[in-house]
This record gives sequence, structure tokens and C-alpha cells, in this order.
Amino acid sequence: MLPVWMLDDLIRRALAEDIGSGDITTDSLVPVDARAEAVIYSKARGVLAGLPVAERVFQALDPGVRMDKLLADGSTLEAGKVIAKVVGPARALLTGERVALNLLQHLSGIATATRQLVELIEGTGARLVDTRKTTPGLRLLEKYAVRVGGGHNHRAGLYDGVLIKDNHIKVAGGITEAVRRARSAVPHTIRIEVEVETLEQLDEAVRAGADAVLLDNMPLPMMKEAVRRAGGRVLLEASGGITAQSIREVAETGVDLISVGAITHSAPALDISMDIGEMKRHYGTECDTDEKR
Amino acid sequence: MLPVWMLDDLIRRALAEDIGSGDITTDSLVPVDARAEAVIYSKARGVLAGLPVAERVFQALDPGVRMDKLLADGSTLEAGKVIAKVVGPARALLTGERVALNLLQHLSGIATATRQLVELIEGTGARLVDTRKTTPGLRLLEKYAVRVGGGHNHRAGLYDGVLIKDNHIKVAGGITEAVRRARSAVPHTIRIEVEVETLEQLDEAVRAGADAVLLDNMPLPMMKEAVRRAGGRVLLEASGGITAQSIREVAETGVDLISVGAITHSAPALDISMDIGEMKRHYGTECDTDEKR
Amino acid sequence: MLPVWMLDDLIRRALAEDIGSGDITTDSLVPVDARAEAVIYSKARGVLAGLPVAERVFQALDPGVRMDKLLADGSTLEAGKVIAKVVGPARALLTGERVALNLLQHLSGIATATRQLVELIEGTGARLVDTRKTTPGLRLLEKYAVRVGGGHNHRAGLYDGVLIKDNHIKVAGGITEAVRRARSAVPHTIRIEVEVETLEQLDEAVRAGADAVLLDNMPLPMMKEAVRRAGGRVLLEASGGITAQSIREVAETGVDLISVGAITHSAPALDISMDIGEMKRHYGTECDTDEKR
Amino acid sequence: MLPVWMLDDLIRRALAEDIGSGDITTDSLVPVDARAEAVIYSKARGVLAGLPVAERVFQALDPGVRMDKLLADGSTLEAGKVIAKVVGPARALLTGERVALNLLQHLSGIATATRQLVELIEGTGARLVDTRKTTPGLRLLEKYAVRVGGGHNHRAGLYDGVLIKDNHIKVAGGITEAVRRARSAVPHTIRIEVEVETLEQLDEAVRAGADAVLLDNMPLPMMKEAVRRAGGRVLLEASGGITAQSIREVAETGVDLISVGAITHSAPALDISMDIGEMKRHYGTECDTDEKR
Amino acid sequence: MLPVWMLDDLIRRALAEDIGSGDITTDSLVPVDARAEAVIYSKARGVLAGLPVAERVFQALDPGVRMDKLLADGSTLEAGKVIAKVVGPARALLTGERVALNLLQHLSGIATATRQLVELIEGTGARLVDTRKTTPGLRLLEKYAVRVGGGHNHRAGLYDGVLIKDNHIKVAGGITEAVRRARSAVPHTIRIEVEVETLEQLDEAVRAGADAVLLDNMPLPMMKEAVRRAGGRVLLEASGGITAQSIREVAETGVDLISVGAITHSAPALDISMDIGEMKRHYGTECDTDEKR
Amino acid sequence: MLPVWMLDDLIRRALAEDIGSGDITTDSLVPVDARAEAVIYSKARGVLAGLPVAERVFQALDPGVRMDKLLADGSTLEAGKVIAKVVGPARALLTGERVALNLLQHLSGIATATRQLVELIEGTGARLVDTRKTTPGLRLLEKYAVRVGGGHNHRAGLYDGVLIKDNHIKVAGGITEAVRRARSAVPHTIRIEVEVETLEQLDEAVRAGADAVLLDNMPLPMMKEAVRRAGGRVLLEASGGITAQSIREVAETGVDLISVGAITHSAPALDISMDIGEMKRHYGTECDTDEKR
Repeated sequence: MLPVWMLDDLIRRALAEDIGSGDITTDSLVPVDARAEAVIYSKARGVLAGLPVAERVFQALDPGVRMDKLLADGSTLEAGKVIAKVVGPARALLTGERVALNLLQHLSGIATATRQLVELIEGTGARLVDTRKTTPGLRLLEKYAVRVGGGHNHRAGLYDGVLIKDNHIKVAGGITEAVRRARSAVPHTIRIEVEVETLEQLDEAVRAGADAVLLDNMPLPMMKEAVRRAGGRVLLEASGGITAQSIREVAETGVDLISVGAITHSAPALDISMDIGEMKRHYGTECDTDEKR
Repeated sequence: MLPVWMLDDLIRRALAEDIGSGDITTDSLVPVDARAEAVIYSKARGVLAGLPVAERVFQALDPGVRMDKLLADGSTLEAGKVIAKVVGPARALLTGERVALNLLQHLSGIATATRQLVELIEGTGARLVDTRKTTPGLRLLEKYAVRVGGGHNHRAGLYDGVLIKDNHIKVAGGITEAVRRARSAVPHTIRIEVEVETLEQLDEAVRAGADAVLLDNMPLPMMKEAVRRAGGRVLLEASGGITAQSIREVAETGVDLISVGAITHSAPALDISMDIGEMKRHYGTECDTDEKR
Repeated sequence: MLPVWMLDDLIRRALAEDIGSGDITTDSLVPVDARAEAVIYSKARGVLAGLPVAERVFQALDPGVRMDKLLADGSTLEAGKVIAKVVGPARALLTGERVALNLLQHLSGIATATRQLVELIEGTGARLVDTRKTTPGLRLLEKYAVRVGGGHNHRAGLYDGVLIKDNHIKVAGGITEAVRRARSAVPHTIRIEVEVETLEQLDEAVRAGADAVLLDNMPLPMMKEAVRRAGGRVLLEASGGITAQSIREVAETGVDLISVGAITHSAPALDISMDIGEMKRHYGTECDTDEKR
Repeated sequence: MLPVWMLDDLIRRALAEDIGSGDITTDSLVPVDARAEAVIYSKARGVLAGLPVAERVFQALDPGVRMDKLLADGSTLEAGKVIAKVVGPARALLTGERVALNLLQHLSGIATATRQLVELIEGTGARLVDTRKTTPGLRLLEKYAVRVGGGHNHRAGLYDGVLIKDNHIKVAGGITEAVRRARSAVPHTIRIEVEVETLEQLDEAVRAGADAVLLDNMPLPMMKEAVRRAGGRVLLEASGGITAQSIREVAETGVDLISVGAITHSAPALDISMDIGEMKRHYGTECDTDEKR
Repeated sequence: MLPVWMLDDLIRRALAEDIGSGDITTDSLVPVDARAEAVIYSKARGVLAGLPVAERVFQALDPGVRMDKLLADGSTLEAGKVIAKVVGPARALLTGERVALNLLQHLSGIATATRQLVELIEGTGARLVDTRKTTPGLRLLEKYAVRVGGGHNHRAGLYDGVLIKDNHIKVAGGITEAVRRARSAVPHTIRIEVEVETLEQLDEAVRAGADAVLLDNMPLPMMKEAVRRAGGRVLLEASGGITAQSIREVAETGVDLISVGAITHSAPALDISMDIGEMKRHYGTECDTDEKR
Repeated sequence: MLPVWMLDDLIRRALAEDIGSGDITTDSLVPVDARAEAVIYSKARGVLAGLPVAERVFQALDPGVRMDKLLADGSTLEAGKVIAKVVGPARALLTGERVALNLLQHLSGIATATRQLVELIEGTGARLVDTRKTTPGLRLLEKYAVRVGGGHNHRAGLYDGVLIKDNHIKVAGGITEAVRRARSAVPHTIRIEVEVETLEQLDEAVRAGADAVLLDNMPLPMMKEAVRRAGGRVLLEASGGITAQSIREVAETGVDLISVGAITHSAPALDISMDIGEMKRHYGTECDTDEKR
């Protein structure tokens, strides 16, 4: 998971975005000392992801909120399944509800989409990996959701992996030279992957000492031949337009990794709701004790 | 659009997230002084949104990047349609490509989903409006994309509209009292909307002087009756599980507003790509002029 | 009140501004472990506002500071009245005193100025409202102080209310067109107010469907006629040069709202002081236990 | 003046506070390409301060705004006097007007209050100095306004001057010991001032080697005696409840410095306005060119 | 020491710099619930500085970490001496170790270098002071380390002391005029120091009323003559290329202050290590309880 | 190099640290419109690093400063060699000098220390690499300086390389299991390095499929045997107490990488100075044109 202080920064911005100068509805109607209980539950089938994030949203508003988690991230959800109970100051529950659910629904949507594909390639030896096609500002959370859904992470950004693409190759004067230069420049802790479109390029990449090769939009027969030629000397990643329809066949070619952008950029939100029950006044009867006149 | 300095903050964070300690591939392979041209084009049908945002992504990396926009936000896209040309330092184009496209694809996806629903209710007099079910950190951009797609915006957050829901009503002791209290507490520049589930609640809200009423998950016949009873004295908003299948019928009940969360939380990214053409060295021949030894 | 985390950000900046690289007087003279008690009291008549803010100032310096509040915000003060007792590490009390008092005196000054005007219009049915003429960085706190003093808030900023002024009208081509365009563009949760100088403009604004009309610097007789013509169809706000001398007459014209910038931009600070009593060493005898040599 | 980048940070926060999610009035009514001219003028007598700050407010919104300054900070204002002309995009002028004026009116109010007191002590040899009783977040600007009004600055914060007060003395075990300790602990670039209430304390402070002594709320005769006893060996600062009525007599006692908190914490805003003239469309006719559909 | 909230900001940035998107080694190998004990010990002779800073590094990662400090800052270290024990979640210890040690080694290195020089001038009456030649971002911590090592601090920055150098003198038209102008412009709480290269300049500075004079790179005989001429009327600071070899002779000239940049800009890190002992699982057996599937 | 906007953030903080509330010497003595020229030159032998950083320091203060670079980073310096000329507003040159030099001296010190070691191992095939023992806040700049000095970078932080140490091994239950788990958890773009102390551990690491092995404090003969046993199947990194005395022998064992913390944590600053020449008034004669009275 994200270090807490990274998460808190993101949550603070998300709350500021929604609350702005104040939750004028709740602040005018709900007493400062009212308490409430709520239930978070699923309205659809899927995979839970992001519950600790939702918890911190409420606690960022009021450290007095307590969440009782009935399920852990990675659990299978179905309509009506209760995920957690939340107890605390009514204002924090009402004001934080939308931000908490927005994150929970988004991350659970990604975990759900990931698991659907992961199940389709079960037993093949191929790993489903994500891409850098993520929502700006949410990448680490989204990559966490991919892991929760059973997928693996590709590089986290431009800084922790070398992926030499078409344009890099052109400017470097060929695959061999590009691999050589990158090897000399980057930390020895980093692997070098080359994106190729033909079998000839694959051969050159292997000879140049690449650690991994991305097969870009290759037809299935060519992909099979690529697996044969590589002979285990490099990791092979299939990429480009792979869907639920095609992923099993791709996996069966013997590639090591299959990357799919849609699990992060196009996963629909999973329908999760929060029901706030009876509220109780904790003590006193005035609406806003800080503003007594 | 977002004020430039709001946008720049968001873009800076998005770039920092992707680049981290450096684009190690591009920095080791592409000379500082190489220049490149690129073409941004669509690979699918849809509505363009976010092009000025993509432009600022590149310019945040290097003020020397120039974008020639062939289409404006709101334009209809189809596969193969060229959107813009981008010229500038090759490093900025390669390093910024993913963040620029992530934003452009996401916002165009929302505009596209919005327009599909807007077209379905054309001529009915109902407005399609968005919700607060947006991606944390991107709300203002997503609401912009909704407008680009022909939709309208509901309140921007908890601060610029009163929406009295079930729990607010309970704690206030009824709709009438809740409206009275909110009216007394919030600025007179703000309207008061009440969420109701029955026609009796609607009647009470109208009598209490609400400006708008949200009809929560009402069956169509009840919605029609609600329109009749309200008689134009309040704005009526239909909400809850409305899809492309049902939206026309909902609109024909005579409601003023139809809110749909899916246009922001579940719109798939629109497939937009960038092709970088030949790169040219501007001058000199050394790879990294700052690091000569 | 401000959400705690907004307040904390403001307090942190205020403390950083005053403390900079360190309170060199206190740090060289007061042992780390010395404790002190202090009394905050008023030296003038007025209305208390901002005590919870002052409390957080001390706690931001040291979470071990405890404030015992003898009065709540909104209480009437007079010379010599004790407001609160503060106990904790002596360094935090000495270092935080000025920032705490600066905020408390400023906000109490605003509440005091507000109540003076509110009392003058008691029984008339008119509300005193504030303006956007606030101190940059302190708006939400100042608007809170206005409420504490018995006033109401106008819009919080440019984002939560439409106020169409002379220049907007000119560029839009008239009041009718301006109201129509604004209505079509802004969320339905927002009301539309138009600023007018003549009765003809008032009539046009009412016909155009404005929700409220600001009567800019109107002579009293014209204002009365405006109230008559409007006939309750729009809210009427009197504005412009209204003082303690004139406010009662203005209120008696029957307007709904009276806005006065001076309660925020020109309220003198209320004289509030803090007396630190005997300090006690808690344990040990060395001055700075982190720097023993 | 403030370094530009400090100023920009403050201005950015002030604009964010007012604009929030957008100036919904201006954005819906004023075309992106409309241009306008405005005149900033005074409606009262006083001293101008903060014009370069107002200029940067507009430029922060749009670098294309140009201000033609007819007067410099420090100029004497009277009702009707034109201060500056501002030309640029109409949206930037309308959206930035309030923040620019709020700062200009506040700082000019301080410069005006300062000059009134400075003129009263002209020829006496005493300097008027400010205090730390400033508005949180605006101290450096307010201290600038004091200089513009002809006053001088006391220490900027707790970090650039030692001021040993009653409580510091008690905990240190006397004035002599307090001065000795402070001298040993703080940089040699810093002077040491001691706050005293009696002549005996003054004598001790002088003997202890203090550089300056603050005479706290001393009656005039005692103050005169203090000047005599000090005999120029230390700087003497008169402080406590000094007003326009008493300041001349205080100055004539021969003290070196007179500090007055009211010039920063209670100066009313100076009435300065902005008139926006005819707006012109620069080109095109559509309202929001980024949102064409 | 630094106020806690300044320290936390610095620590947060230091941790973000090292951890980035995550400690991938620890996160994949160490269970969330594993606990560990560690010992921090010295591997060289020197002076300890920064232990409370190291403590907060661990606590910033996990508030559950406890440090048992066996030595206080300022203690003398030798190879093998145990400094502190640290107990807490194993992940926090492993992930925070490097940042904690980097700060501890750096600050102890400065304290060590400082004490070496301080001991060389013991008994001479001269103070060793630091300079502004510090590591960007770490100045206040480094100046703290100098104090821990027995040195004193020169001004903290450009804001809390006047030091008039060659170029300032030239542009002001001479030492006399420069001192006069500075005295008139800066707060009376600030002393004025002038940098001189000749005895004539020293004489002029004394006559002009400077509070201190910096003798820039003066040969020893000239320095002695400077002390004689100044006769205690100003503080004298020796500066420029002073090393362990020359510092005693410099001190014996009778100067008041000796400033040495090398104690901050060139002190080698002190060799301090951390040994993590056996780890224990606290409860449960799964590796990452947030990611169970 | 650092992306410009990362650099600017760091520079802004460094300037804020030094300037605080203002450069009171320069602001009171140097007219706003004075211009100056300066020369940056070396006073010692070494390697230049950080000149573009120094340039941006001045430009952050005033975009009107121009630097004419006579040497590029990586150039060999000797006493008296002129590095660059700087021209611009005198205030920016005087106020920015120290921060610019602090960075330039620090980075050049690191490049110099690096090159000394790099030259000692020339021709051996071993790479000198840095460590994570860097100054908090300056890591990316320091790693840049290492490259300028001819060294290579180890991983940038905990996020872009796996380094399995003693404690990780213990908790995972052995090297084999640790490598297996890490491989399964981290992106395939990352290599896995294992720290070992014995040849048996080396053998196990090789068998487990590690990509690299760090030989921790191994005696030379054991290191030679390690090279023989590894037989090129893994990269070998020598680490632990390696100095200028021992580095050649270490390199000749045949290891691939030699890591040395001292090049970043203990490199003394390189002596570089700036001489400001004659200043010229650009126009006008008043000292502070913003503060005319």
C-alpha cells in the first residue's frame, strides 16, 4: 500500500476539492455533537479494493471515526454484501461519504476488471500486467488495485524501468546501439526492455542483450514464433488491443507477460453504497456549539 | 476552463508522478538538442475534450513545445482523424506523451459518454447533469468535459449548493424544518434542493419553499405524477440508475434535469494516439551537453 | 467553522511567519521543561470570536497545551472579563501568544462591529450580510466572525453565487440576455442576482427572472419604491456606503438584505490580552536537554 | 518589497480563496477574447501603498494585463485622484478586481494611518515603529506599508531581535542574568532589548548591557526621567496605548522609538475603486472558444 | 532545535526522496506485522548530533516506533559505543534506516568538526562561529549541530544581521555612508557589521558606528593591530581560510569571533551504523494483510 | 539533469531559507536599478559540476540575470580558472551569490571526489557507483554530480532496484526464498541484487537467480574467488570501506561495480568564488523606487 503520508496528501486534496469552503448542507442541519452509524455494502458482483483508503478519508475529517472492516481488500463482492460498518460523528460521515465511495468504487472497479482477465489466463503461466495508462494523480492506488485483483505491476513510471520504443531506436541508430547506450547510462538495478514489431527486431534485441521484449500488436502466429525464437533468453510481453476475447489465445502462445491498459483506464466503477442509520445526539441540544450567541 | 494556475498544479503533479527521478530511457538515448514532430489522432468515434490540457502538459516540460490544433474541444472524432500537430524538443514530446494522452483520453471519454446521452434526450427540454461521482483530483476537468459533451453541471461540490438528503431530513426533524434551517443558514445566493422518495415528500418540499426537488429512483408513472403536482413551482431532477435505455422515457416525463453518475465514473477512455515522426538534431552532436567530461 | 485541516494550514503559515528560524528570546531563556499558566482576558467591550482558533495555535506548537474556555464564541465581553485559561509548556505559551492574540483580536473586532449594526436593525426583518471585501487569506474565518456577531454571509467567493454587475450587463447586451445566459451556464443550485442603479433596471431584472437584485447606492425614497415594485418577487439587497447612521432607515425601507464591507475591512481589533503567571520547572534543571554537552 | 516569488505565493492563495472552482458570473457572460480598460482611483484622502502588489494580482490571472501606474507608492491621494490604468483581457480584470483592491485598500489604509502619526512627531527625533500585531499571513506586506507611510520597522518576527519581557525575566532569575544568557546564546548580529516597567529595572538593564529598553506603559514624567537616566547609553522605546492624542508628548520626552500596534491591526481600509470602461471583443464572436461544439 | 513542524516537513521530503513509489524490497519480503529491534552505534570517535531528528524519521514512517536514547546530543562517541535502541514495526525500521542515518551522520560530522576547533581555542575568549556556507535545505539543522559541537551561530540568513561587504560599500559611496543608510533602514534590533581588508577601513567603520567588523583574510600581525586599535569598541570577527593549524594563533590575537565555513560545508560524515536484530511476527502469518485474495 | 521544475522547487526553498524576510543589507544599500557584473572562478583543482544549477538560482531571483558559461560541467578546474560571467541587477547577484556558490561548491566537490577514484580504476573494467548515502533533499543533484565526475549511479532510491540485505533474508527464510518472493512481487523491469558475506551465500544467490550480488566487506582473496565462482552469471558489486588506497586492488579482482558512499557523504566543498565588479546605475537616482514618499 501507499505510505500513509502519501495517502494523506491525496486524501486531503480530494476532500478539499469536494468540500471547498464548507459542506453547507450538513453544517446547517447536523449538530456538531450528533453521532451516526453507517453500513458500506456492495450492490454488484466484483472484487473489493481500497477499503483502508476509504477508512482514512473519514479519519482525515475526524480522527474519532471508527471503521469495522468485515471484509479485506481482495474479497469477492456480490449485491447486498456488507463490507464495513462506520461509526462516528455524523458530520464526518455525511461530509466524507462521497469522497470515500468515489475512491472505493474506482479501485474496486479496477480490481474487478483485473480479476476477470486474470481468471481467463489461469494456468497458462502468463502474468497480466498493467501499464502507465492510469488516471493522473492516482497511479499508485490504481496499481495497488491491480495487485489486489491478481494482476502484476509493470514499471511504476518512467524512472524504474527502461522501455525502448520505436522513436528511441531511430534516434539511437538501431536496437543494438540503443541497448548498449541505455545499459551504460542507467543503474545496473534496472532491466532493459525493447519494443519490437517484427521477428527480425526481436532477434536483434535478444542479441543486443535486452532483458525483455515487448511484442507490439503482433498477430498470434507471429507471437508464437517469437516465443520459439526467444527460447527463454528474454522475457516476452504481449501488448496492444488485447481483450477478454483474445487474452486466452495470447497467453497460450507462451508469452511471459500480457499488458492491458483497459484495466486501469476504462474499468467502470463498481457499485458500492453507504447507508447511514439513525443519528444520535451525544450530549447537549444546540446546533453549533461554537457559535452560541 | 480551469484557471491556468490551477491546471498547472495538477499537471505538475501528474508529471511528477510519471517521471519521478527521471525518464531514464529518453534521457539516456535522446540528445538534449534533438527536435521532433508528432501527430495526435483519434482511433475511435467520439467527442474531443482536453486538448488545451494536453498542450500545457508538453509546455510544462518545455516551454518551447508548440501545438497546432486542427480541431477544437467539442469536435466529433472518428478513427484516423488528426487532432493536432506537436513540434518541439524530442525529449519533451517523448517524456510528456503518456501524461498528455492519459488526460486527453480520459476527458474525451467523458465528453463522448455525455454526448451519447444528450443526443438521446434532444428536444425534450430536460438537461443532462453530472454528479459528484467524479475521480478525486480531476473534478473540475471532468465537469468541463461534461459541458464539452453538451451536458450541464450540477453543483461543483458541497459548497455551492444545498442538497438535503434523507439523513439531513431525519436529524432536522422533517423536510419543512430542514428547509427553514438551511435557508436561514446559507448565503441567499444558494438554492435549496431536497431529495424525496414519495409524492407526499414532494408536496411537503414544495410547500416548504424548496427551489428544486430530486426524485430518487422513482418509477416512471410516479415521476409523471410528480411533474404534474409540482406544476413548475420547483425544478425537478430525476436521479438513480438512469441508463441509455431508460433516459428518453425519463426525459419525456417532463422533469427538468436528469443526473447520471456514469458519465464521469464509468466512461471508458477514448482511444487517441500520438505518432512521433522523424527526429532532427538541432545543432551539435553530443548526447548530453550538460554532462561533457 | 473551518474544517480543522484548513485551519491548521493557515495557523502553520501564521506561526512560520512569526517564528521564522526560531524564537531566539524564548529559546535562550526558557527551559524546555518549564510549564506555565496564562489567562486570556478582555480589555474592552465587544463580542468574542475565534477562541477555538487561538486554542489550535497553541496546540500546533505543542499538543500538550490545554485551554479551559470560560466563554464561548459569541459571548459579550467587557474590560477585565476572563475568557480562558491556558496551561502547558512555557515555551509554547510564550512563542504562540502573539499569533493567537492577533487572530483572536481581529476576529473579535469583526464580530463586535457586526453586532453593533445587527442591533441597530433588530426587528426590521432585514439581514445584515458581509461582502467579498475581506482580508486575503482570512476570508472563511472572517465570515465565521460575521456569523458569530449575528450577521449572515453573502456568497463565499466568485464560485457560489452569480452577481451580474454593470460590466457583465454591457458585454452581454442587456439584463435580460445576461440573466438568460447565466441561467443556462451555471448549476441550477445557484441563484442569480443582478446589480441595478435604476428602477427601470429593477423592473427588467424581475421580468428576466433574477432571484435577487442588488440596489446599488440608491437614495432612500427610490429604495422604498423598489421594495414596492418588487413586491416580494425577488430578494432585495441594499448596498453602498451604509453606516451605523443610516442603516436603520435603510432597513425600514423593507429590503431583505443590507451588505456592509466595513464590518470586515475596517473593523478595529478588539483589545484582548494574555497574562502569563508563574512558571514552574516540571523536572530536571538543565536549560535545553537536547543540547547537553 | 517582498521578493517576487513570495508575493506570488500569497497572491495565488488570495486568488484561489476568491475564485475557488471558478468565477461563474464572468465565465458565463464575458467572452474569452474580450478586452477591457479600467481606471483605479481614490475616493478618499490618504497614502498609496501596494500598487505593485495589485499589478501582480492581475498578471497572475493573465500575464497579458498591463498596468500604467500614474502614481507611485507613497503618493498622497485625495478623492477622485486617478492612480493607475489597467488594460487587458476583460475576464482577468473582472475576476481579479476584488483581490487587487482588497490588498490595495488594506495596505493604503496602513500607510495612511502611519503617516498621520509620523507627521505628528515630525522634528522630534523619535521614530515611529510598528509591532508584531499584524494580520496573519500579511506581515511583510504590512511592514512594507508602514515604511511607505514614513514609519520604521521593529523586528520582523521572533527570529531577528531579542525582546526580553516580564516572563522571560522571571524565569531567567532577573534582568542581568537574562541579558547575559541571551547574549551568550544568540548570534552577535542581534541586539538585545529589555521590556521594563520601572526606573530601577531600566537601570539594571543598562548595567546589564542591554542595547535597547522598552518602556512599557510608563507615565510621561517617568518616561522623561528614563530618558535622563539612560543618557544615550541605550535606545529607548515607548510602548503601550499611545494614540494620536498622546504621541507628540511622548516623542517630546526624548525617547528614540515609539511603537504603535494600531497602525497595523486597526487601520481602516482606504476607499479605492476600479471602474471598468467599455469592453471590446478582440476577434471572433463566440463566447467560449474552448468549448465550441 | 527546529520547531517540530519544520522538522517534519524536512523529514517528509527526505523520506519521499528515498522511498518514492515504495520500498519494493521491504514491501515484498517483510510482513506488515513483523516487529524488529535495532541498535544504533558509532564506528568512530566524534560528537553525537541529531538523534531526535533520527527518532522523528522513524516515527514519521510509523508512529509506533519507539527510540530509547542511551546518549544525548553532544555526547562524545567512540567506536562501538551504543547510541540508542529502536523498536517497532520491522518495515519502518528497514525503510527509514538510511534517511535516519544520513541525517545523523551528517549532523554528527558537523558537531565533530566543530568541537575539534572549539577545543583548539579553549581559554582564549574567542568564539567559533559558523557561516552561511551550509547545505541548501539543511541550514537550521546544521547550525544546531554547530551549537551541539560547542560553536556559536553567526546570523541565520540574510534577514537577521547586516553584513556590509566590499560591493555594498562601493555602491553606497563609502563605509560611513553605508553604515548610516543601513542604520536608518533596518530594525533597531539588528546590529551592523562591516567587512574590511585594511586598518584604515577598520578605523572608518569604528568611527561610523559599526557594531562589529569582519577582518577579511588579514595577516596575523595586522589582526593584532586591529584588536589594539578597536580597543573593545566593536566586536572583531576573523574570517578567511582559517584552519586547525592556524586557529589558535588567530584566537590569541584577541579577536572576539572566528568564523569557519569548513565546519558546515566540508565536514565528513561521522561513521554511525544501525544493526537490526531478530524480527518477530506480531500476529497472523500472511505477508500483506491488506492484499489477501 | 533534473527536470527544470524539480530544480526550481529546490532552488526556491534554498533561497527562502537564506533570504527569509529579506536581504536587509542589500535592500538598504543597493538601488533597485543598479546593475553589476560578476565573475565566478575556481580557487582549487577539481571538476566543475552544477553550473546550470547556479545559473537558475540567479534567474529565480530575477529573470533578467544572464550567465555566460565559459566552461561546461565536467571541465577540469584549477586555481584562478574563470568559470562564468554573470550580468544583471546588482541586487539579484548580491542576494543570490551564497546559495548559488553553496550548490556549485558542493556539487563540484562531489564530482572532484568521484573523478579521483574513477581515475584510479581506469582500464580495469570496474564501474565506480554511488550509494544512497546522500544529503537529504539533494540526492538527484548529487547523483548528477557523480555522473559528471565519471562515476555511475546505483539505484536512485528504494523504488527502482531490489537490494536484499541480511535482515530481508532472515525474515524471508533464506536467500532462495527471498529472491523468489521478490521476483514474484516486483515489476519485471527491476533487477534483483542480493547482499552476501560468504561464498556460500554467493553460490546460493546465483542459483536462486539473482541478477547481481553485493559482496559486503569481503577480503580481497575472497573477492577474487567470488569473481571466479560467479563466472559472469551475475554482476558483482564490491562494497564496504573502500578508499583511494584500496580501490585499485578491489577493481583488479574483476568485480563489475565498486560502490563508495564517501564520494557523496564526505566530499569536501570545492573552493569556488564570485567577484562582483563595478556596479552601474541603470537609470534614475533614488534608492528604492517602490518606496518614494
